[in-house]
Amino acid sequence: MSRLAKTHQPPYYAVIFSSQRTEIDKGYEKMAEKMVELASQQKGFLGVESAHDGELGITVSYWESLDAIKQWKEHSAHQVAQNRGKKEWYKNFALRVCKVERDNFFEM
Amino acid sequence: MSRLAKTHQPPYYAVIFSSQRTEIDKGYEKMAEKMVELASQQKGFLGVESAHDGELGITVSYWESLDAIKQWKEHSAHQVAQNRGKKEWYKNFALRVCKVERDNFFEM
Repeated sequence: MSRLAKTHQPPYYAVIFSSQRTEIDKGYEKMAEKMVELASQQKGFLGVESAHDGELGITVSYWESLDAIKQWKEHSAHQVAQNRGKKEWYKNFALRVCKVERDNFFEM
Repeated sequence: MSRLAKTHQPPYYAVIFSSQRTEIDKGYEKMAEKMVELASQQKGFLGVESAHDGELGITVSYWESLDAIKQWKEHSAHQVAQNRGKKEWYKNFALRVCKVERDNFFEM
């Protein structure tokens, strides 16, 4: 099954979230699943791709507009998750908001 | 050790490469390492972040300009790798070229 996000023609927006976790696991998986579920229900959500090895995680979510990203950032349940993330789960992270200008898909 | 790319203030550019591999492993690791090494030597290269689980890989490389991305795309050794990738290693991939408009770093 393809795990690539089925985004439409550019332009659209991407949020690249790269992170390294602490040793604290408590509540993380459940919260991560809940956040993907909630984000998927947001207006302007286009898709998400996520991969992590033992050390680094990269999650890229795709959005229709900067406004949709702002709405999601300010979503109350997401705010709770962000705060717990900084206090407990993340050693460090980088979050980058980008405009996707062109894309290219390949399938065997 | 931090595996996050130390990029400067936006704007700059990101190439998000999300892929799912075939069963063919031959030559892949060696080529992937060689490509990271070569890309790092390119003018305008800012950094790279890469994570893969058993099924999906996400590599994000960061660049000074669209021209730097174009030069790397057309690099002869990279062309060879791209062709082998399509013939042997990748079941599917999505490649997205983006302009990073803002970013946010966190460190505990």
